[in-house]
Amino acid sequence: MQPTPSYVIGVDFGSDSVRCLVVRSSDGAEIASAVVAYPRWKTGRYCDPAANRYRQHPLDYIESLENCVRGALAHCDATTRHAIRGISFDTTASTPVLTDRQGTPLALLPRFAEEPDAMFVLWKDHTAIAEADEINAAAHRRQTDPTRYSGGTYSCEWAWAKMLHVLRNTPELRTEAYSWVEHCDWISALLVGDTTPERIARSRCVAGHKAMWHESWGGLPSEDFLEEIDPLLNIFRGHLYRDTATGDRSVGGLCPEWAARLGLQPGIAVGIGAIDCHVGAVGAGIAPGTLVKVIGTSTCDIAVGTYEAVGEHAVRGICGQVDGSVLPGFIGFEAGQAAFGDIYAWLRRVLAWPLRKFVPDEAPELEERILAALTEEAERLPLTADDPVALDWHNGRRTPDADPRMRGVLGGLTLGTSAPALFKSLVEATAFGSRAIHERIAEEGIPVREVVAIGGIARKSPYVMQTMADITGVPIRVLDSDQACALGAAMFASVAAGIHPTVEAAQRAMRPGFSAEYRPDETKKAIYDALYARYRRMTSV
Amino acid sequence: MQPTPSYVIGVDFGSDSVRCLVVRSSDGAEIASAVVAYPRWKTGRYCDPAANRYRQHPLDYIESLENCVRGALAHCDATTRHAIRGISFDTTASTPVLTDRQGTPLALLPRFAEEPDAMFVLWKDHTAIAEADEINAAAHRRQTDPTRYSGGTYSCEWAWAKMLHVLRNTPELRTEAYSWVEHCDWISALLVGDTTPERIARSRCVAGHKAMWHESWGGLPSEDFLEEIDPLLNIFRGHLYRDTATGDRSVGGLCPEWAARLGLQPGIAVGIGAIDCHVGAVGAGIAPGTLVKVIGTSTCDIAVGTYEAVGEHAVRGICGQVDGSVLPGFIGFEAGQAAFGDIYAWLRRVLAWPLRKFVPDEAPELEERILAALTEEAERLPLTADDPVALDWHNGRRTPDADPRMRGVLGGLTLGTSAPALFKSLVEATAFGSRAIHERIAEEGIPVREVVAIGGIARKSPYVMQTMADITGVPIRVLDSDQACALGAAMFASVAAGIHPTVEAAQRAMRPGFSAEYRPDETKKAIYDALYARYRRMTSV
Repeated sequence: MQPTPSYVIGVDFGSDSVRCLVVRSSDGAEIASAVVAYPRWKTGRYCDPAANRYRQHPLDYIESLENCVRGALAHCDATTRHAIRGISFDTTASTPVLTDRQGTPLALLPRFAEEPDAMFVLWKDHTAIAEADEINAAAHRRQTDPTRYSGGTYSCEWAWAKMLHVLRNTPELRTEAYSWVEHCDWISALLVGDTTPERIARSRCVAGHKAMWHESWGGLPSEDFLEEIDPLLNIFRGHLYRDTATGDRSVGGLCPEWAARLGLQPGIAVGIGAIDCHVGAVGAGIAPGTLVKVIGTSTCDIAVGTYEAVGEHAVRGICGQVDGSVLPGFIGFEAGQAAFGDIYAWLRRVLAWPLRKFVPDEAPELEERILAALTEEAERLPLTADDPVALDWHNGRRTPDADPRMRGVLGGLTLGTSAPALFKSLVEATAFGSRAIHERIAEEGIPVREVVAIGGIARKSPYVMQTMADITGVPIRVLDSDQACALGAAMFASVAAGIHPTVEAAQRAMRPGFSAEYRPDETKKAIYDALYARYRRMTSV
Repeated sequence: MQPTPSYVIGVDFGSDSVRCLVVRSSDGAEIASAVVAYPRWKTGRYCDPAANRYRQHPLDYIESLENCVRGALAHCDATTRHAIRGISFDTTASTPVLTDRQGTPLALLPRFAEEPDAMFVLWKDHTAIAEADEINAAAHRRQTDPTRYSGGTYSCEWAWAKMLHVLRNTPELRTEAYSWVEHCDWISALLVGDTTPERIARSRCVAGHKAMWHESWGGLPSEDFLEEIDPLLNIFRGHLYRDTATGDRSVGGLCPEWAARLGLQPGIAVGIGAIDCHVGAVGAGIAPGTLVKVIGTSTCDIAVGTYEAVGEHAVRGICGQVDGSVLPGFIGFEAGQAAFGDIYAWLRRVLAWPLRKFVPDEAPELEERILAALTEEAERLPLTADDPVALDWHNGRRTPDADPRMRGVLGGLTLGTSAPALFKSLVEATAFGSRAIHERIAEEGIPVREVVAIGGIARKSPYVMQTMADITGVPIRVLDSDQACALGAAMFASVAAGIHPTVEAAQRAMRPGFSAEYRPDETKKAIYDALYARYRRMTSV
């Protein structure tokens, strides 16, 4: 007799929408899914792209979660719905929000309902550059530098900088502000029915990568360090956390209220959340030697290392290294490129300027065809050591050696440089950026033997992927799924629910296959090495 | 009683066409003119832009000269035609050709009629980069460096490199090759009816700026130096020249054959030719403190200094300094930017790519509108120290410190950088290139107090000219003539014919007024200084 099949739900909160995936835990089969866009976000409210300010309203998360889970369940029969045994989440990060004493995001209080500083500060918000500078300066003055496991640089995209920024920027919030919570931790706390700040289960992944949490100094950075940055941070004193948990753990059972709202059984396991690309890396089958690269508008590069290989050694100039942040039992590393597909989209936008100017009616449709046409011509261009070379820092540099002030460059230009040649140089620059990451982490004891790629660019652009294989010199396989993050969350849910004993076991059972493989073309190596040497010599001004 | 008016002809051989201007010598009034395009050149024969090979057939010059002078004379009455007393020339340079023993360009021999290496090697031809390198290496080994007055660098655009290149490249030419001649010297020799190489009158301007001729070492570089570069250069031994003449001198009287061909009186004065932009500078009223800038696809910057200010001091890193090359009695300096309007045209071409791709029928007409539309938007952009910054070396760097291997750069790019912002950065880069020239020559004792601008860009783009005034910090006046070169040639003809006693006197009588003046906007200085500092830090890779 076959055992009764069990199911789990992975919920992936992306930048623009939330996706819910119902998965069979025995083999990873994707049974049903639904996607719901954040309604307020879609209208551009609360954001100011010119100032790099990006905020999301907590109601966007709640409403779209409910609609999305219900939407997916609508495709399942009753037997399946009753056999769902766990739910886990991934979200963007660092996407924190100020909360009151009850753990309620301040934007849910009527008086702050329209206040952007009371909302979740989305990962890509760059309003806290000054605060990050101050945090770094204070950190580097200390004997034990709290940025030690964050590549030596605390990013303006991370929680402490953002929370300090909103407190400074909107003084009215200070009377209500009591704690702060990351998006993924708030969701799991909501679902188990207790958002009391001191009791919220905190994701090791987010805490370690975004809030300088580390076991060696007893958790979060010391309160005197925080006070040294700004006494405003005393608001949070005693209202945060000491402990964290890895993604294989359950926070508790689904509370009756949310079970009713979502259409699930009360009491099923609610897993610890984690950062989207880390969870996607799990879904893609991450293991030592395999770098999972989430390639979209930007990239997130995830690797894991053993304690034997890395130990307490702090890897230089990457975004973070956290014990158990990806796979429990391994040290997880996060690196990434601050812009990737965004750089191609930038060139498309520049080139579309004459279309919008002179043939405005046709421009939107024609603009969509630009990248395919550029690709077709760029593929036919000869490859020489004298080609234009670009720097891929249009959105600042993330890894190695984060610096948000770095800028993009198009170099090596002649009067004969064509639009496709510029595109080719940008594609190569993004691959050079990847190579720089591989080289850095290899120097630090985490060799990259293969890449598993997920994300839009990985699925859609063979030209980009082949160039990356040629330039990085390692084979690249593309996961045959567009839902690696939700799938990884489902794997975590299966462990949290006790269906699989370990995350690795869940991966073995549930990981999908590959849709494409790119092997390095050794004949191009010498020329790419020469171009890469020029890339490394280039400087941003 | 009014004196009988006299007239002179200035003939300006440009890159694409020749222009003939009939001028009244008393006041510079432009009586008649004609322009004739080079018929073979127009078809692109003998050229290979991908290899930077640009050659012009001697028949192009002869035929178009005849048609052009006759075309201009057709607009004059008989009295005027009979009162024409002199003719002078300017040409591009260095544009040399191999000749046989009679001074006949080898391409006029039937067997070499279709051989590009037997034709004039146009100024912008870059096929002789390797030869220029060898000449520089040999020069820098010598106690008295022959490049001393050429800014320390011999250019691949200059005669010795080009003549060596064609001799190497096409060995069949070696048996007939006997001497070489520059375009402008060949024309005046033709017109006086004697092209014997040893008797051709040589332009001081071309010889000094393009062939390392200098009085202090007795003329051309020593024959043992030339032999050291390559024994092939022994072909020319004894077949060149010791002396040169300034543009105010007459070569002799117009020979009967050419008088008949051109429709002029035999015996009228034929002036010494000179380089187009040097002659244009005379037409524009060059004087100490006034830099004349010919602004078109590239720029040619001409200044003059007194012996007291400069003496034998060799100015660093400019294209050349030659006693009497511009104004007799002053040291003439030539500098320039290897690309100027060409850089804007490059961006236009890049941006036109989607138009050509998607709306090919309308593209040619739309492409012509791009620069005006970019200008309109660029003028409205705010100016900040954080703006993108470009390097204007798309065609190599000419001055200061010539290096044809330098390349253009677009830097300081963000995901928000727009097409008009790129255009703005390129306009500023070309102005920064101008500022770098001003600063260098000022350091060397030739201060720039004002600029007189001539050329297509000067006349057509107030945005570019205002930006240049703001960035260089000196006022710029634009000559109210599109024919400054031909007019300068006419001034020289008037002195060669004995109508005016000196070139300065001819300038006073014949120079036109100004069509526009641009004064530096002091409020922008601090920001432009900051951007210029970034420009100076940028490097080409």
